[in-house]
Amino acid sequence: MPNQHDILCAITWQNDQLHLLDQRKLPQEHQLMALSSATSVAQAISDMVVRGAPAIGITAAYGVVLASKAAYAADPNHWQTLIETNMQQLAQARPTAVNLVWALQRMRGCFAKISGNPVPSLLEEAQGIQQEDIDANRQMGDLGASLLPSDCQVLTHCNAGALATGGYGTALGVIRSAHAAGKISQVYADETRPWLQGARLTAWELLQDNIPVTLLADGAAAALMQQKRINWIIVGADRITANGDVANKIGTYSLAVLARQHGIKFMVVAPTSTIDMNLESGNQIIIEERAMTEILMIGGQSIAPNGAKAWNPSFDVTPAALVDVIVTEKGVVKPPTTERLATLMK
Amino acid sequence: MPNQHDILCAITWQNDQLHLLDQRKLPQEHQLMALSSATSVAQAISDMVVRGAPAIGITAAYGVVLASKAAYAADPNHWQTLIETNMQQLAQARPTAVNLVWALQRMRGCFAKISGNPVPSLLEEAQGIQQEDIDANRQMGDLGASLLPSDCQVLTHCNAGALATGGYGTALGVIRSAHAAGKISQVYADETRPWLQGARLTAWELLQDNIPVTLLADGAAAALMQQKRINWIIVGADRITANGDVANKIGTYSLAVLARQHGIKFMVVAPTSTIDMNLESGNQIIIEERAMTEILMIGGQSIAPNGAKAWNPSFDVTPAALVDVIVTEKGVVKPPTTERLATLMK
Repeated sequence: MPNQHDILCAITWQNDQLHLLDQRKLPQEHQLMALSSATSVAQAISDMVVRGAPAIGITAAYGVVLASKAAYAADPNHWQTLIETNMQQLAQARPTAVNLVWALQRMRGCFAKISGNPVPSLLEEAQGIQQEDIDANRQMGDLGASLLPSDCQVLTHCNAGALATGGYGTALGVIRSAHAAGKISQVYADETRPWLQGARLTAWELLQDNIPVTLLADGAAAALMQQKRINWIIVGADRITANGDVANKIGTYSLAVLARQHGIKFMVVAPTSTIDMNLESGNQIIIEERAMTEILMIGGQSIAPNGAKAWNPSFDVTPAALVDVIVTEKGVVKPPTTERLATLMK
Repeated sequence: MPNQHDILCAITWQNDQLHLLDQRKLPQEHQLMALSSATSVAQAISDMVVRGAPAIGITAAYGVVLASKAAYAADPNHWQTLIETNMQQLAQARPTAVNLVWALQRMRGCFAKISGNPVPSLLEEAQGIQQEDIDANRQMGDLGASLLPSDCQVLTHCNAGALATGGYGTALGVIRSAHAAGKISQVYADETRPWLQGARLTAWELLQDNIPVTLLADGAAAALMQQKRINWIIVGADRITANGDVANKIGTYSLAVLARQHGIKFMVVAPTSTIDMNLESGNQIIIEERAMTEILMIGGQSIAPNGAKAWNPSFDVTPAALVDVIVTEKGVVKPPTTERLATLMK
C-alpha cells in the first residue's frame, strides 16, 4: 500500500473499490467517489474527477484491476480477452497525457505471468505504480529544489501537486522540498482557466502545508515578471517528446515565452513515465480540445451570450528551446536536447 | 443628443437622469440604472457599472451635470464652490484611466462662462463629449481598418467596444469598420479574467453585429499565435503616456510580448483624450489594484480555499517599443515615439 497517511492522496484503494477525491468539487466539497468498474473509472478520467498526467495513469492502472476482476468472474479462462474492451476505454479516456498509455502498458506487461485470479497481482502492480510515483516525486523534489537559489519567488501554473500524482506532486513536489529547505519566500499560482486548478487545487494544497501562496489571473503573470517578482517558473507536464518539447496545461507556452523574455528560469518537473520517446517532437502530440461550455459557463452559470463559440484546447506545446531544465526522478536534463533525453532514458 | 438609435449606447441622458446599462450584469440581464446624484455616479464608476476609459470619462461628465443641479438648487450664487466635493469624488472614482480627469477638466473649463443655471450648458458639454467620442471612434475605425490586410484574423482583449465608449468602440470600432469593409474573417476574443469583459461584453457586442467571434481562455492566446491563427492584435487603452507606453487591461502586456515574438502586429486604438502628455512614461501611471475577491470568487461563489490571497492589478503597462501602431482620431502614430506623439498632440 502507498503510504497514505503522511501525504495527501487523491487516489486510494479500499474495500475492493477505487476511491477518488472528486477534484471538480474541491476545495468547497471533499467528496470521495467510490468506483467498482473500469467503465466508471474511464468516465471519471474523461470527466476530470481526477486529472494530472501521473494521477490519471495511476487511476487507469486501478481501472485495470477492476476490469480484471469483472472479466475473471465472467470467464476465468478468458479474462485476458474479455478485458480488452475496458483496456481500450481506459486508453481513450483522455488523449494528451502519455502516462495513461504508459500505465496501461505496464499493467499489460503483468498479464503473461499471471495464473489463476489476476486481481491480487494486478492490484500489487497498480499500488506499486502509485508508490513509485510518490517516490519519484520525492526524488524530483530534492533534485529540483537543489537548483533553486535561496529566497526564491516562484510561479506555478495549473496543479502539478499531490492531487495530480500519486502524492506529493511534481512541480509542487519541488516547491514543497524547496520550502522545507527554506528556499521559497513566495509562491504565485496562476488561477488557470478554464478549470481553475490553480485557484481550486494548488492554493488548497499549499495552504494546507503553510506555504505562502498568492493567486493571480493568468493574464497577470506577465506583469509579475515585468515587476521582477519571480525568479523561477515551475510546472508539470502531460507529455514530453524525445526532443524535449513539453505538452502541459494551456497557458504554459505563454509563460515559457514570457519567462525567456524576462530572464526568468523555466523548470519542467515530470517523472520519466511522462516522457514519450516514440514521438520526435511536440507537433506530433494530440492536443485535447474540450467542450466549449468550459469557457462559456462557470459553475453551471452562463457567462457568455447565447450563440457564442469558444476555442478550448486543454494543453499547449512548449518547445524544448524555451525550457531551461527538465527534472525527472532519474536526473536533471539541462537544457533538454534529444541527445540528453536519450541518455537519460537508456 | 448623441445619436442613440443606430448604435449601441450604454450611457444615456433621459428625464434629467443618467441611465447606465449595468455592465456587471450583461449579457444575461439588461438592466438600466437611473442615477440622480454625482455621488451615485462616482459609485457606479468605482463599482464598474460602467467601465472602459472613454465611457467613464463621459459618465463623469454627466456626473458633473447632476452635481451642478444639486449645487445650484442649494445655493445659486455659490454652486461652483459647492460642486467641488463632487468633482473630487468623481475624479477619484478610479485611478488609471486618464479620460476621467480629462472629462472633468473639460467640464470645469465651462464654469467661468456660465451665468445663471449651469445645467443646460453643462449638459450640452457632456453630450458634446459623448458625441465627439462617437465621432472619434468612427474616425479611428476607418483609420485602423485601412491598416489591416484582407482576410484578417484578429485577437482582441477585454472590451474596447460601444460599451466602453460613447458608442461604436475603439478597438471594436476598428473591427466593426474592417468587418464592414470585408477585411475580417475571424475575431478571437480573450475572455479576460477576472471580469470576463471579453466573454460577457465583447462577444455580446460582436454577435449582435453578426461579426464572427470565438472566445478563448486568456492563457490560450499564445497557442493561437503559435498556430498562426491571427495576424493582428487590436486593443484599447486606459492611459497612454507621452512616450507611447500604454496602460490597458491586465493581460495586454502579455499579448504584446507574445505578438512581437510571433511576428504579429499590435495595434492600440484610443482617442487623444486617453493620451496623458503630463506623464513621461508608463512607470508613472498609477495601476489600480482591485479587491482580491474578484479573483477568489466568481458569480458570488468562492472558487479558492478559505484564507487564499490574490494579487489583482486591473491594468498593466505595455512599453511603446512593443506597440506597432497607435490609432487616434487625429491620425496614426506608427510606431509610437515621444516625438511623433508630441507632433500629433500639438
